[in-house]
This record gives sequence, structure tokens and C-alpha cells, in this order.
Amino acid sequence: MSKPNYIAQIVRAVAPKLQEKDTSIIGVNLPVLKARLDHLSAAFPAGTQHSIAIKTHPHPKMLAQLVKWGYGLEAASIEEVRLALAAGCSPSKIVFDSPVKTRAEIAEIAGFEGMLVNVNSLGELDRYPENFKPVLGIRINPQVHTGAPERFDVSKKESKFGVALEHREAIVKAAQRYNIQALHMHSGSQMKDLEVQQGALESLRALADEINGQQPGKIKVLDVGGGLPSEPLSDHTRMQVYGRIMSMVFGGSSYQLVTEFGQWVHALAGFALSKIEYVIAPGRMFIHLGADFFMRDAYTEARAFPLSVWTVDAMPVEGEKVPFDIAGPLCFAGDYLAQGVPMASGVQENDLLFVDHCGANTYALWSRHCSREVPSVWAWDGAEIIHWSERQNIGF
Amino acid sequence: MSKPNYIAQIVRAVAPKLQEKDTSIIGVNLPVLKARLDHLSAAFPAGTQHSIAIKTHPHPKMLAQLVKWGYGLEAASIEEVRLALAAGCSPSKIVFDSPVKTRAEIAEIAGFEGMLVNVNSLGELDRYPENFKPVLGIRINPQVHTGAPERFDVSKKESKFGVALEHREAIVKAAQRYNIQALHMHSGSQMKDLEVQQGALESLRALADEINGQQPGKIKVLDVGGGLPSEPLSDHTRMQVYGRIMSMVFGGSSYQLVTEFGQWVHALAGFALSKIEYVIAPGRMFIHLGADFFMRDAYTEARAFPLSVWTVDAMPVEGEKVPFDIAGPLCFAGDYLAQGVPMASGVQENDLLFVDHCGANTYALWSRHCSREVPSVWAWDGAEIIHWSERQNIGF
Repeated sequence: MSKPNYIAQIVRAVAPKLQEKDTSIIGVNLPVLKARLDHLSAAFPAGTQHSIAIKTHPHPKMLAQLVKWGYGLEAASIEEVRLALAAGCSPSKIVFDSPVKTRAEIAEIAGFEGMLVNVNSLGELDRYPENFKPVLGIRINPQVHTGAPERFDVSKKESKFGVALEHREAIVKAAQRYNIQALHMHSGSQMKDLEVQQGALESLRALADEINGQQPGKIKVLDVGGGLPSEPLSDHTRMQVYGRIMSMVFGGSSYQLVTEFGQWVHALAGFALSKIEYVIAPGRMFIHLGADFFMRDAYTEARAFPLSVWTVDAMPVEGEKVPFDIAGPLCFAGDYLAQGVPMASGVQENDLLFVDHCGANTYALWSRHCSREVPSVWAWDGAEIIHWSERQNIGF
Repeated sequence: MSKPNYIAQIVRAVAPKLQEKDTSIIGVNLPVLKARLDHLSAAFPAGTQHSIAIKTHPHPKMLAQLVKWGYGLEAASIEEVRLALAAGCSPSKIVFDSPVKTRAEIAEIAGFEGMLVNVNSLGELDRYPENFKPVLGIRINPQVHTGAPERFDVSKKESKFGVALEHREAIVKAAQRYNIQALHMHSGSQMKDLEVQQGALESLRALADEINGQQPGKIKVLDVGGGLPSEPLSDHTRMQVYGRIMSMVFGGSSYQLVTEFGQWVHALAGFALSKIEYVIAPGRMFIHLGADFFMRDAYTEARAFPLSVWTVDAMPVEGEKVPFDIAGPLCFAGDYLAQGVPMASGVQENDLLFVDHCGANTYALWSRHCSREVPSVWAWDGAEIIHWSERQNIGF
């Protein structure tokens, strides 16, 4: 079977929700999401706290669902901290990582016992009050190259993030002088080279061990950022390899491990459905989601989302495959979801385009281009489609 | 004088508006905006209707200001049509250009006498009811290359926009068969080669003349899209050259001319101010505006915005110039406004970064990355700073 059979089920459930004024929907595939989280938890050492990156998919119901399943949340801005708290996340499972924390923001979180707050520079440490309740960590730039694409590489020799590992002596001194209980290291999104990451993790442990050698028990938490590209689940995933590396590097220690995965968790667990508004021969169709929703795909390299076309009655559209350009709704020449992709030649207006695996950094990065409304959001629970939020105007 | 002296005035007026919880502002420079509009009106043939592209700067107060000055508005989505009407724009000065107009949207605008509605394909014509009140136009793809960057070029041989000029016969037939009163041609944003554009305009006139040769007076309106890169005002602008070309090509005809400029009008008339939250040696500063506001600059080629640093008391920061990276607030390695730009070495945290000429496609494309709030918006009237809108949370 070439397509997962959940697609037909989802299309059958969602198609009736599309209307003349609600021409596309954004969806979350809960069984896929749960399976990925289970796989992640099983792959990593027991007791690891997985705080999922809010920025990858910040829908309030998504955050509440993750919390309900026992996961923590990683916040990259004070607004995301507020979203995490509103979702019912225990402060002790929230990580706060912004590189521009203001004094007002630090005051806002000062009372949250157990929240992990990572400073981005040693200079930032002077902003924290005496009675600061959260756990304070230092973000280390491991200065490695794990193969993350340039735009997502946070761990080159020069990076906007963290204190470079080459300033080791200054880091150790700061850890002695301030109430530091955690170290945070991030080696980039979409890491390709896990051997390099293993070296970075070993450096992190050596640094923590050195600090604890001078003040036993000082560093309690190691927060390991850095994500993997999404991959299908199987008995041999790169996430399992990563988990084994974690066990090897941190085995026998008593550090509380924390992770901050985002894309690996979400990408394959999201879908979208759009009415095909126009089909123009030869090989061009217009849909209602473009560089507003697929922002990174229009501006950088388009991701290869699995695409399929359906009738409004949720029957697959038949016909020999011919190349199609799929254009978005915006008045912008770069607004294509894909170009030259093979699609059933029988497709016509009012059919539906199903886009799978678009759960990461889509809804999350919504751009207000042409002031278009954000589609309604729905969750598929394996049997039914559940309404998460209305179509929304975020203009002014 | 190397800097326009309005900057010191603006910084003096705006600096007191920055607060701990409102760390950056977005601004509009009304005298600059008005001077540009005056220049445009003077450069083009008298009687030309200039409908300014809403998508370049859709703030409701901006739209209301443009309407007050007598300009029309060009809408690229039904949401933008609603914004134009809410701003008090007469339907006869609104152009509606979306490539995915639904039947519901067509019904919504069907009663607006005089609104110009351009179809993107001949197939779209069948969707219009008999009693449709707006003026109906056909968007023509002139199939030229005016030097617009690839991403903004809408007039190549293949484009998602319009009916290719090579289908001339079909266009003429459609104009006879349907109640077409307008032709619309768009040769791309940021056109570089006005000689090529002249050729495209001559084709447009020849096509309109051919249709009118068969049915005199049928085509009444010629809507000429296509923008120019922003340029400073002077006695010798490219906009004046463009205006002279328009006079040459359409002189002696009675066509109502319409334009849809956006970036040329807005880019130099916008500014932003951010608190500098952290300065990290050597040469890195963090501000509160990044790939959310400067979206295109973070994802494509950064525009060379004039930058200057100021104390909170609105005094220029002194010191020899050294190269600085200017990082945004987002948890995203690509989040830089600029890298390696010369800035006064004396800059320190709590100073202010003034970014000029960022009025186009910034606020307008706001991306909800990390769920950060949209800054407050202010207008400088030449003497005072006027509050346009509050800091706004557009999360969920």
C-alpha cells in the first residue's frame, strides 16, 4: 500500500468541514504524534525530561495535549512561557531559553520554582536577583558542526547563541560565582552527524564534571538541545542511535537530563487540506495555503511533503500522473508549495489537496502576508476529527 | 550632513515610548510618505488613479491616511478588500486582484459599483454573475523580463499570474463575450529595465486598441501593475522616467490609467526603533526585532537599511566604527538583521537602534515566530509622534 490508509479516513472526516468561507484547514494527527513521543521516550535514558519546543507548534490545545501526556515545554520567548503556564505545564517542566530576556521578563519568572532558565551569555547572569527561584543554567556553544543547514546551525565557532566552549575557564568561574545548577548545550536543528554530537556531549559532561569536582553536586541538570531531521518510525531510527549515545555519555551519572525536540516530534504529525480553487491547464493549480502557512518552503528550500488529491466525497482522484505547479493564494511570485510534482491528471476545481507531514514550523510561523485569515485547526484522534480552533483574523 | 536630521527628532520623540514591556516600536514617517506620493502623482499622467498596494503596509491607520490623501487601495485578498472598505475607500478606487477568488468572495463584492476586479485566468470569468456591478478586467502576463528578482517576477513566460499574452486571440474573444471593461498587466515587482516595460505597455495598448477597434469604447480602464525599487527623491528619478513612458505610450488615448505601487511608496517612509538588550563583545548586539518583522531580510537577502545607535536621551552614540552583527530575538540561527555592519564601538545595552527605510513588507509580513507580540505602531508627522496602535498579541 503506497499511502498510509489514515489519509482516506482523515479526508472523509475533514472534507465536510471545508466551506465556501473556510477553504482550508490545518490538522494534527494525534496517533502519529503519540507514537513519536513514545518512541522518543523509549529511545532516551529513563527519567529524561523531554520539554517539547513550543515554537514548532504553539497551538494552545497542542500544548495542553503534550502536558496531559506528561511532557514538558520549551519556551523561546516570554510569550511562550505564558503559553506553557496557560497550558497547565508545571514550571518544573518548563525551559526558558530566549537570548533577549529583559529585566521585566526575569522579574516575571523569578518566582517559578524549578523552571529551567538558561542564560545566553555570562553578562546576562548579573541581571538575576538573589531570590531567583528557577534553576539557572548557562547555554554553551559547543563549537562543532553537526551538519545542520547553515540557517539552523547554532553551534559554529561564531553563533548568536551561548557561551563558546573555548571560554571554558570563564564558564567554570561563573558557575562557581553564581547560583548555576544547569548547563545547556545546543548543537543545531536537523543535526546530521551524531558522532560529532557525541563529542559535543562528552565535552558537556567533562565541563559539568569539572565544576562538580570543585563543588560537588553543583551542576544537577544537563539540558541537551539540538534536533534531528524528521524520520519515519521503525525499529532502527536515528533517534534510537541518539538515545544510545546519551546513555553511553551520561550513563552512571546522576545528572537530570532534559531535551528540547521540536521538528522531529511534530513534522510527520501534521497535515493540511485545501480546496483546489482553480486548475489551469497545463499543470497548474491554486490552493488556499501558501507562503503564509508554508513560509519556510516558499522562502527557502521546499520540503517534499507527501501530496494527494481527493474529491469532495473523499475518493482519490484518478488519472495518469502529470507534473503540476501548486500555487498559493498570495500576490507574490514566489508563492508555490511545490513545482513540477506529479499529480493525477484528472484533478479539477473543488477537489481537495491533502498535504501530509507539515506539522512543524508552518502554523507556528504564520506570516500575515496579504492579511489572510488563519484556517481553522482540527485534531484527528484516529477515529474522529476534533475541532481545536476557529478560522481566525489576526489582522488589525 | 550624513544623516537626515529627522532621525534625531524622531528618536527624541519616540524614545520615551519604549518601556520595559514595550521594547521596540514600528514607525511611519508621514512627511516622507506624503512627499513620495506627491512625486508619484506629479510624475504620472494627470488623472491616473494610484491604488496603493495594501499588502505592503496594511495598518488600518495607514490605509485611512492614504484614502484621506485621495489615493485608492489595491487588495490582494478578500480580507484586504474588507480593510480597504473599513478605511473608507470608495469602491471605485479599490482594485481586487486575488488569484484564488472563491464564489463566496465574488458574491461578497458583486454589489460594489466601480470596484476594479481583475480575473487571473479566462476560466475565472464563468464565475461572475450577470448583475456583477464592479468593473471586470483580465490580468495579462506580458511575458517579458523586466529584471525583477526571480522571486518577485510575475511576468516570465510561465507565471502563476494572468493570461499569457501569447494567448492573444483567446483574450480578445473573451473580451467580446464577457462584460470586460479593463485590462490589467503586471510586469513584476522591483522592475529594473524600463525599456522592456515600455514594450510591454505598448503591447497592452495594442491589445486594448484591437478590442476597441471591434467594439468601440469596450475597454475603458488600463491597470498597470509592476513596481520600481525604492529610490530617494530627486529631480531625476526613475519614477519620472516611468511616468514619461506612460505619457508616451498612452498619450492621446482616453483610457483611465490605474497603478498599484507599494514598495516604492512605503519602503523609505518607515522606520523602527529597538532597545539594544544585550551587547556581547566582540561586535554582537541583540535587539527585539528579527525574522518576525524583518522576515524577508532573514530568509532572503538582507536589505541595506540605514542603521544608527542612540542613547536613551536621543544622543548619537560616539566611538570609532567597528563591525557588528545585529541579532534578532528569535530562537533561530538565521535571525540576523545584519552582519558585519560598522557601528559605533561605544554602543552598550539600553542604547537604541534606529532602523530607517523599513516601511515595506515588514510589519506587513509579520511572522508569528516564537509567538512574540507585534510592537506598537506610531506615526511621525514632522513635529510629533502619534500613537497608531498598541502592542498586540496575535497568538492563540
